[in-house]
Amino acid sequence: MHVNLKEKFSKFSEHWHPYIIGELNENHIKIAKVKGELIWHKHDHEDELFIVLEGTLMMDFRDKTIATKPGEILVVPKGVEHKPWTRDEEVKIMLVEPKSTKHTGDLIVEQTVTDQKWI
Amino acid sequence: MHVNLKEKFSKFSEHWHPYIIGELNENHIKIAKVKGELIWHKHDHEDELFIVLEGTLMMDFRDKTIATKPGEILVVPKGVEHKPWTRDEEVKIMLVEPKSTKHTGDLIVEQTVTDQKWI
Repeated sequence: MHVNLKEKFSKFSEHWHPYIIGELNENHIKIAKVKGELIWHKHDHEDELFIVLEGTLMMDFRDKTIATKPGEILVVPKGVEHKPWTRDEEVKIMLVEPKSTKHTGDLIVEQTVTDQKWI
Repeated sequence: MHVNLKEKFSKFSEHWHPYIIGELNENHIKIAKVKGELIWHKHDHEDELFIVLEGTLMMDFRDKTIATKPGEILVVPKGVEHKPWTRDEEVKIMLVEPKSTKHTGDLIVEQTVTDQKWI
């Protein structure tokens, strides 16, 4: 499976809506455009890998904030509360996480996408 | 876990020697510098994700060759024979694959790294 990320990103414009672009063992590979902020949440059983492709992804933890840029990666361990947000820019990210992962954790909010689709 | 890839790449120079930079559920996140060619091999039980950061990664399959560049990803499904190689350049890649994955599959050759280390 060979995927051009720019081509996939050109197919949608919503923010905080992850789309699946590949699978890897029991994980999905997803991409998303994000801007503004998501809610505080955690994933009890799943680590999440964030790869930043464009812009700066800000991630609040209860004890610190981490800025992740292109050329850097961030793994949020299972069980750890986190809240992603951005400054006034659209940020493009790629995620690798177990297929079971819900992007707003155990919370269902307005931004929650329940039918995750391939693109 | 927050990792700067450039900083990690500055710590080694060997080719075809993957180093572990993170873990994600039952997977390792690894980086490698590659140049020249590796052997034909397969992983019976593990899909492998290749993310190209610099240069062009060439991948021979029995029926085709795929060139993967920065901004593209390649997943080699379990059981599929493949042979990575490069043109006359050093290529920097990031990999995500199950912890059990051996980089030369079920073959032990001169290039096989048996003690995969964190960097």
